[in-house]
Amino acid sequence: MRFQHLIEKKRDGHELTDAELEFFIHGYVGKNIPDYQAAAFLMATFFRGMSFRETVALTRLMRDSGEVVDLSEIPGIKVDKHSTGGVGDKISLILAPVVAAAGVPVPMISGRSLAHTGGTLDKLESIPGFRTNLGLKQFARLIQKNNACLIGQTRSICPADRLIYALRDTTGTVPSLPLICASILSKKLAEGINALVLDVKIGNGAIFEKNNEGEELARQLIRVAGEFNMPAVALLTDMSQPLGQAIGNWLEVLEGIEVLRGGGPQDIRELTLALAGHMLLLGKKVETVHEGYKRAQEVLDSGAAWEKFVAIIEAQSGEVKFVEKPERYPKPKYRRQIEAQRTGWISAINARRLGKISMTLGAGRRTLKDKIDYTAGLYVEKKVGDAVTESEPLLRAQSSAMKITEDIESELRSCFTMSEQPVQPPALLRGVLDAQGMKPAPELF
Amino acid sequence: MRFQHLIEKKRDGHELTDAELEFFIHGYVGKNIPDYQAAAFLMATFFRGMSFRETVALTRLMRDSGEVVDLSEIPGIKVDKHSTGGVGDKISLILAPVVAAAGVPVPMISGRSLAHTGGTLDKLESIPGFRTNLGLKQFARLIQKNNACLIGQTRSICPADRLIYALRDTTGTVPSLPLICASILSKKLAEGINALVLDVKIGNGAIFEKNNEGEELARQLIRVAGEFNMPAVALLTDMSQPLGQAIGNWLEVLEGIEVLRGGGPQDIRELTLALAGHMLLLGKKVETVHEGYKRAQEVLDSGAAWEKFVAIIEAQSGEVKFVEKPERYPKPKYRRQIEAQRTGWISAINARRLGKISMTLGAGRRTLKDKIDYTAGLYVEKKVGDAVTESEPLLRAQSSAMKITEDIESELRSCFTMSEQPVQPPALLRGVLDAQGMKPAPELF
Repeated sequence: MRFQHLIEKKRDGHELTDAELEFFIHGYVGKNIPDYQAAAFLMATFFRGMSFRETVALTRLMRDSGEVVDLSEIPGIKVDKHSTGGVGDKISLILAPVVAAAGVPVPMISGRSLAHTGGTLDKLESIPGFRTNLGLKQFARLIQKNNACLIGQTRSICPADRLIYALRDTTGTVPSLPLICASILSKKLAEGINALVLDVKIGNGAIFEKNNEGEELARQLIRVAGEFNMPAVALLTDMSQPLGQAIGNWLEVLEGIEVLRGGGPQDIRELTLALAGHMLLLGKKVETVHEGYKRAQEVLDSGAAWEKFVAIIEAQSGEVKFVEKPERYPKPKYRRQIEAQRTGWISAINARRLGKISMTLGAGRRTLKDKIDYTAGLYVEKKVGDAVTESEPLLRAQSSAMKITEDIESELRSCFTMSEQPVQPPALLRGVLDAQGMKPAPELF
Repeated sequence: MRFQHLIEKKRDGHELTDAELEFFIHGYVGKNIPDYQAAAFLMATFFRGMSFRETVALTRLMRDSGEVVDLSEIPGIKVDKHSTGGVGDKISLILAPVVAAAGVPVPMISGRSLAHTGGTLDKLESIPGFRTNLGLKQFARLIQKNNACLIGQTRSICPADRLIYALRDTTGTVPSLPLICASILSKKLAEGINALVLDVKIGNGAIFEKNNEGEELARQLIRVAGEFNMPAVALLTDMSQPLGQAIGNWLEVLEGIEVLRGGGPQDIRELTLALAGHMLLLGKKVETVHEGYKRAQEVLDSGAAWEKFVAIIEAQSGEVKFVEKPERYPKPKYRRQIEAQRTGWISAINARRLGKISMTLGAGRRTLKDKIDYTAGLYVEKKVGDAVTESEPLLRAQSSAMKITEDIESELRSCFTMSEQPVQPPALLRGVLDAQGMKPAPELF
């Protein structure tokens, strides 16, 4: 078999056999297929797609390219959540303790910041001392102890995905449905879970901007997960503006703490409860989603989720004093408040651009070697639908890595679009999809 | 500018500016753009194509990536021929001396064997001593002296094309119209010619199998050449079976010698005269194509073309004794004759597969480091339309590099399709295209 012929086969729209896909994955991981041939193959796949069978085979091959965690000795149905990524998405920080406190084990292997979106790992590491590079044995031990552990992808898990993702990231081949599908599911299947809740984001801050693309991805993910006997449910959620108010690592941890203490922005709280409700149902702790919401609300309001959060941080060597007394955390060196230049209603916020500016301020990396400024970020004061009076603050920007210049200020201001008419805020939940099909977004309570 | 954004721009079907294409060519030649990003860009170009403006800009940038030969001191209109490549295509060996003998300077920079097709350089180098690696100064000197010189692409000519072609060859991105167009024309423009005749091959042995694809390529080549004030004419010719009877380096030189001495297969002779006729017209040595054919026929029949051939070989250090007395040439170590297993008519010959088998026997290379067996090749005894009686020879195979096994014999036999009904041989010339449009194939005489 020669890989060049497989590139041509995919290019010409033919279906690859399982053996041919195996040749690709083994060859690429084994360094027998050079990056440039793999890149051409990925671009051909972007244009031609993959059949369902090909997507399943690719997912299996990528999962099996490395270690597969065995959590079968831990009792209970292990459930994780995966978000396709958005700006200000700190849900995992809150959701894991909520679900764990409600009795469902949550093994969570997360990623780092990427393009305009932050990464759960970086957010956690903004807590001084917090360790995300635990071995898989300790990962299992802490899940047994606390019902939750949040670590990073180890080198032994899905090496094929790690290599292919890095290549896709620089070759314009990220937004390919079968490649996204195999990348997400191979990692989730390798972490030893039994069921999965997906948060598929739609809007200018997400990979897919259109409803139907997000739906199609959700449908594929659920169908492929089904082939591996992993029940999955997808929530289609709004990413047409940032989630919550905080963007940037420590700022997002702070917002998470607020929610865990019973406050915080309403959208963060609602999305957490919606996802938790589905996780508790999949984890068979409740009989209905509605019951799941209520249970989640209870552990949040009783302080049980907050206690779980503290326990997780302690178990992973994080300095609890900073989450208990956030005022002790180092302050950013530079701050700037951006104010509205006229009166009206916010009609749109460019979440993607805000995400990119936050990265530029120090909250993200250009290359994996860059160091993150954990204090850097944005705090959105007004969201879509809000009324604004001239000179009221729209958002605050902060950084220790760079001064917030007037150029940045006007770039930030240009991310807000104003209307002279009142504007309806977008619905957070657009719908729920499972193996039986699409359901309308549920009323939470 | 980041190249990743240009990949995405092309991927999404947008037109690139001249500055963006310059960023690609300069970046790739300067090793600032890695192979894997270039490969993804080329595959996106395969799917999205290029506009006429983009193709012209790419051609200019590739030409200007290296040295451009200046032959303006040599009097006369310099004319070259380019073939898109086929199996058994030894026309250049005969055509260059014919046109040079008729008074038109022919500066010819040729390529090596590639995939299933042979290369003029390798054929010439099968003549002991023949040097194709002359410098550009000696190239110009020999054109002045003999009206013809045949060399290989030097490192200083079109480095962008050399790098991009090598990448396309291994990434499934060869059959892209704008890339083919820029590759052909950048090299021809760099060799200092004033006009160009194109032999665009169509059929199973060519890059394009369909008439309309070949026509589209011819049309593009002529249009882009026009932007550089280089008049071009394209002959669309049949490549549904091998050209002539010989496939393989020395075997093809032998067939060329036969034609130059007044014999040889009719199709080789006809195609040479047709191409020569157009070259003499473009070189303003004649008033009509028909007159060009006649002039070419004269130099062929008078022996003037043969003498020019000998002069070219001498000037480039080839040992003339081998072309004058070919029986002195080393004999192949292994031979095998493949016979028909039934009586009937040849209805099809798989030229592409014959080409590949010839390469396997030693006539071509897998990598540029492989050594060629100049004695290796095939000699086709029966062509499409010929009547065959059971056990009559279909073709002969020979090699010094490997034994011709029964497996190879049956593979070779399977390249011939037989019919029980008489079959019409395919027309050699399918049409002629110039800036004014398509004309039907002319009657030669």
